[in-house]
Amino acid sequence: MSKSASYTFGLVGLGVMGRNFILNVADNGFSALGYDLDEEKARSLREEGGNPDKVDATSDLGTFVAGLSLPRKIMLLVPAGNIVDRVIEDLLPLLDEGDIIVDGGNSFFRDTDRRETYLKEKGINFFGAGVSGGAEGARRGPSIMPGGNREAYAHLKPIFEAASAKYKGEPCVAYLGPKSSGNYVKMVHNGIEYGLMQLTAEIYELLKTAGRLDNPAISDAFHRWDQDRLESFLVSISATILKQKDDLGSGYLVDKILDKAKQKGTGKWTSQNSMDLGIPMPTIDMAVSMRQLSALKDHRETLDERFGDLEVPEWTPEDLLPKAEAALYFAFIMTYAQGLHLLTEASEDYEYNLNMETIAKIWRAGCIIRAELLADIAQAYGANPELPNLVLAPELTDAIGSCLPAIREVVAYGAKYGISIPCLSSALSYFDAFSSGRLPLNLVQAQRDYFGSHTYERTDQEGIFHTEWPKG
Amino acid sequence: MSKSASYTFGLVGLGVMGRNFILNVADNGFSALGYDLDEEKARSLREEGGNPDKVDATSDLGTFVAGLSLPRKIMLLVPAGNIVDRVIEDLLPLLDEGDIIVDGGNSFFRDTDRRETYLKEKGINFFGAGVSGGAEGARRGPSIMPGGNREAYAHLKPIFEAASAKYKGEPCVAYLGPKSSGNYVKMVHNGIEYGLMQLTAEIYELLKTAGRLDNPAISDAFHRWDQDRLESFLVSISATILKQKDDLGSGYLVDKILDKAKQKGTGKWTSQNSMDLGIPMPTIDMAVSMRQLSALKDHRETLDERFGDLEVPEWTPEDLLPKAEAALYFAFIMTYAQGLHLLTEASEDYEYNLNMETIAKIWRAGCIIRAELLADIAQAYGANPELPNLVLAPELTDAIGSCLPAIREVVAYGAKYGISIPCLSSALSYFDAFSSGRLPLNLVQAQRDYFGSHTYERTDQEGIFHTEWPKG
Repeated sequence: MSKSASYTFGLVGLGVMGRNFILNVADNGFSALGYDLDEEKARSLREEGGNPDKVDATSDLGTFVAGLSLPRKIMLLVPAGNIVDRVIEDLLPLLDEGDIIVDGGNSFFRDTDRRETYLKEKGINFFGAGVSGGAEGARRGPSIMPGGNREAYAHLKPIFEAASAKYKGEPCVAYLGPKSSGNYVKMVHNGIEYGLMQLTAEIYELLKTAGRLDNPAISDAFHRWDQDRLESFLVSISATILKQKDDLGSGYLVDKILDKAKQKGTGKWTSQNSMDLGIPMPTIDMAVSMRQLSALKDHRETLDERFGDLEVPEWTPEDLLPKAEAALYFAFIMTYAQGLHLLTEASEDYEYNLNMETIAKIWRAGCIIRAELLADIAQAYGANPELPNLVLAPELTDAIGSCLPAIREVVAYGAKYGISIPCLSSALSYFDAFSSGRLPLNLVQAQRDYFGSHTYERTDQEGIFHTEWPKG
Repeated sequence: MSKSASYTFGLVGLGVMGRNFILNVADNGFSALGYDLDEEKARSLREEGGNPDKVDATSDLGTFVAGLSLPRKIMLLVPAGNIVDRVIEDLLPLLDEGDIIVDGGNSFFRDTDRRETYLKEKGINFFGAGVSGGAEGARRGPSIMPGGNREAYAHLKPIFEAASAKYKGEPCVAYLGPKSSGNYVKMVHNGIEYGLMQLTAEIYELLKTAGRLDNPAISDAFHRWDQDRLESFLVSISATILKQKDDLGSGYLVDKILDKAKQKGTGKWTSQNSMDLGIPMPTIDMAVSMRQLSALKDHRETLDERFGDLEVPEWTPEDLLPKAEAALYFAFIMTYAQGLHLLTEASEDYEYNLNMETIAKIWRAGCIIRAELLADIAQAYGANPELPNLVLAPELTDAIGSCLPAIREVVAYGAKYGISIPCLSSALSYFDAFSSGRLPLNLVQAQRDYFGSHTYERTDQEGIFHTEWPKG
């Protein structure tokens, strides 16, 4: 490394995501310097980068910091947790006032708030910026969700806009709001991702079990759907996955993959936080539950044997396929609606001042939950920035209404014949409860008043009431 | 107040619960002294108590503490939160080593752990003891769930056993475990309570909407069911509630009660903690969601008008009633199973060393979730203390299996005609996923490997695998 203070962008953590993202930044004309404790990773990046004027790497932190132009723009792509704090502490003595640190990992938003407050006192601008798109997205253009100091964002903007995915030419990055808003939006993105993944898996199950379709036929269906209103990354890769042959044996790989799905916590955080904020998101909750339930494979096998399987009558593919498509589309809408509802509430509660149209727009490409549907969602929020919940958007009424007969038939079929489609079912439950002007919770509130004197309101007059209920 | 240090039991907080519980203790032959900052409440207890040798009250904390025999046994029945800490701080300088403080409120279990550690250093034994049964239970015999120091419990045991509810002569209280185990068990009790309440309300909705039954007919059905395997506090009071006339107008009160159900947080904590511990409890999650959704009444009315109601064909009561009963019984089992599963996991993770049979036993009377079913549950855990989940208990296989056709029919009916029965539906979803030896989560795990290189396991060989998936 020769020139001092000449690199525009610094990146800490040269794992797959970090290496790919820094190469992406360099490809877009910003000189970039990487740092990793592991000299092997630094050397590997130097080799892959080719031209050290454009992208270079070091395993010496002093050299790294000294190599960056002011204000320094240093992005961390390291595992969430204590490592972020350790890297910050290592960097701090070497930084100058006005420098910028961007945490690009899936940090818990309260950690980001803590770090932002801590670093502000020291004159350092701290951003939490969710990055979605996996390794491929990091290399070719991810969706980036930055939150932090608005003024300082001006320094990051040209780099992020160049490196991000583009949807019809529009960059999939925007300043989202102050403090932890960027990490929060990414957390909810991941919650939605949990829901969409589980829903896609349930449709696969339905097509296999009721439709008697084999993997290539299901792959074909997903591929066709991906050309239309269900165009989305997750439907698209499911089509690819389902036709993948097993290179360690015969048949299709998907049949050999163990049905235990792991998780890293962002979906769980989304559900937990939604409960704190009072926003119902049963489809995302259920997706989290299903990851957990999938781990109990021994018990599942015991119960499967004990209770046996129901005979599932065949549902002819000609009839089933369009209904499955509509059910999935309906459930996708409900899942986005739940996640975006949480963001609307968090925007107030945490003073993020989020622009929902912007969020829908930067999710249209690059990220895991990218989908054509997000263009409609962006339009709905553009037309009404104060929209409380997507289900209320007039723009979606026809789509929702026209899918209802299909999702009803699918869920009823699953219930009747024991096909495990819990997220599809909970998406319908969500809609049916949400569109009930009257719910039976009057009885719940009466019970609360009965045993706990918790009082109730009335439908016909104002006030708070309590009844001295007769004993049993 | 004359005699010094002569009262066996002290109680802080003379609200309805506190006053009722101290009168209960005194009725059972233990002299008891109450304290409340509010002299009015103290006077009112003195008057109601009649004999100051048996039960007395004061609004002076020094007099209160001086009036208790050693080791002092002081129970707090004050609102959860900072007030508990303030009362503890006020008491501390007046106490002697070996004294016992019992928090009888719904404190968050981590607060209890913090307080227990803090007070142990000062030589004070601190118990978190959940008390369930409402005002009536406090007066006539609640279920009490104490956790703390096992040796110190000897001092509380005779008082709690005398004051607690009895199930066929057995007291509904037992030492549960160390630290916050008592509060934790009560938290999960309340999570189960959320589920059972919502389920009862959903059956009421089903009987009304599909069965065209009026309030007295639904009340009659609940009353009959309460004589059989569904015998339970919540079914019983629902029968009573449904036949209550409206004394402010004509007709039945339940029809005038607003369908917004409030909550105090214990159900939410249960769901949130279950996600941390990796235990699926979709029925309880859904019950929490429904409380939250019920609050969005304006939006619900808008959507109801926009999407309209489906014509629900009549389900003849003769056919519907036994099926509704079986569906409710099935869903009750699933709800207890989910809550008890969480306790089993928490027992390990938090080193509570819980005895599940004991817990089921002390819930058989006095508390809000008391039910005849708990006798069977206690037997199942008695026969197999290591039972991982209630659904696996051979003792319940017949009951579950025989209810399955009914719950399937009910859930399918609800899905088809838009009747909002989300917890019944999620109870079936839980069972259907849990009894699936193979779930479609293989596709989820394949997706995770596709976009995040998260790897997967195989069904046919050991190891961790990753595939270089082809692009789109």
